[in-house]
Amino acid sequence: MRTHPKKKVEIIVERPLLPAVLDLVDGLGATGYTVLRTERGRGQSGAWQAGDLSGASDRVMVVVITSDAVADRIVERAYEMLESYTAIVLLSDVAVVRHDHF
Amino acid sequence: MRTHPKKKVEIIVERPLLPAVLDLVDGLGATGYTVLRTERGRGQSGAWQAGDLSGASDRVMVVVITSDAVADRIVERAYEMLESYTAIVLLSDVAVVRHDHF
Amino acid sequence: MRTHPKKKVEIIVERPLLPAVLDLVDGLGATGYTVLRTERGRGQSGAWQAGDLSGASDRVMVVVITSDAVADRIVERAYEMLESYTAIVLLSDVAVVRHDHF
Repeated sequence: MRTHPKKKVEIIVERPLLPAVLDLVDGLGATGYTVLRTERGRGQSGAWQAGDLSGASDRVMVVVITSDAVADRIVERAYEMLESYTAIVLLSDVAVVRHDHF
Repeated sequence: MRTHPKKKVEIIVERPLLPAVLDLVDGLGATGYTVLRTERGRGQSGAWQAGDLSGASDRVMVVVITSDAVADRIVERAYEMLESYTAIVLLSDVAVVRHDHF
Repeated sequence: MRTHPKKKVEIIVERPLLPAVLDLVDGLGATGYTVLRTERGRGQSGAWQAGDLSGASDRVMVVVITSDAVADRIVERAYEMLESYTAIVLLSDVAVVRHDHF
C-alpha cells in the first residue's frame, strides 16, 4: 500500500482559546482538523478537570494532519499565540493513504 | 526497557460506519482496538459536530495497535471501504512493551 | 521553527487504575499529563464499553509528554504495575516547541 508522509499537529488548549486556534489552523491552509474532548489533566498551571463549574479550565485537543510546510507554520504561529498560556503543541510523523486530502 | 516496534492505525469515520470498520479490523487479525469520541471537526465535506440532531455526522476515532503486516492490510482495506467517504486513515510508529499482546 | 524531541507515553487502563497510574507518572518526574475518555474497545479480556452499569470496564487514555529518560522509567514501572491487567502502554516520538515545559 503506497502511503504519503504527513505531519500530525496536536494542540491541547483551554476551551476558550479553541476558536482562535481553529481560525489559525484554517487560515494557514490546513484542509481540516478534529477536536477531541479531554477529561482531566495536570500541567504547569496545576491540575484541571472537565466539568469545573467555571468551565474555564476545560481542555480540548485539536488534531491536524497536514504537509510539513503547513505544520511548521501552524506550530510556529500557535507557539506565538499560546506563549502565555499553558498550551501543549506537539508535532509527529504519520503516513496517509489519500495524498490529495491533506 | 526492551520495547517492540508496532504500528498505530487511526481511523476517523462517521459513526454509522463504525460497525463496518470494527468488523474489518477484527477480520484482519488485530487483537484489539480502542474507540475515542470526537467533539467536532472540519474536513472535505465541511464542518461537523457531535450532537447534531441528525446524528449522521458524529465522528469517532478508532485506534488499533498491531504488526506491520496487519496494519498494512487494515489501511489498504479501510481505504477501499472508505474511499467514497470523508474518512481519515493514519499510520504511525509506536513501541510497546508487551510483544505478545498485539 | 526549532523543535525538541520528546517522548509521548500513552497508557490505556481501566478507570479504577487511573489514580495509581497518575501517582506513578507524577512520582517519576513528568511535568504533566492529559486524560482522554474512551468510548468502547476490545482487548485480551474481550469487548468493553463506557457506561456499563458496573463502571468497572470503563477505560481512559493517559497521555504524557516527557524526556526519554522519564518516559523509559514510566514505561518500565507501568509495565510492572499493570502486568496482570489488560492495559496498553505505548511509546512514540514527538517534537515540542517549548523545551522547558516537559
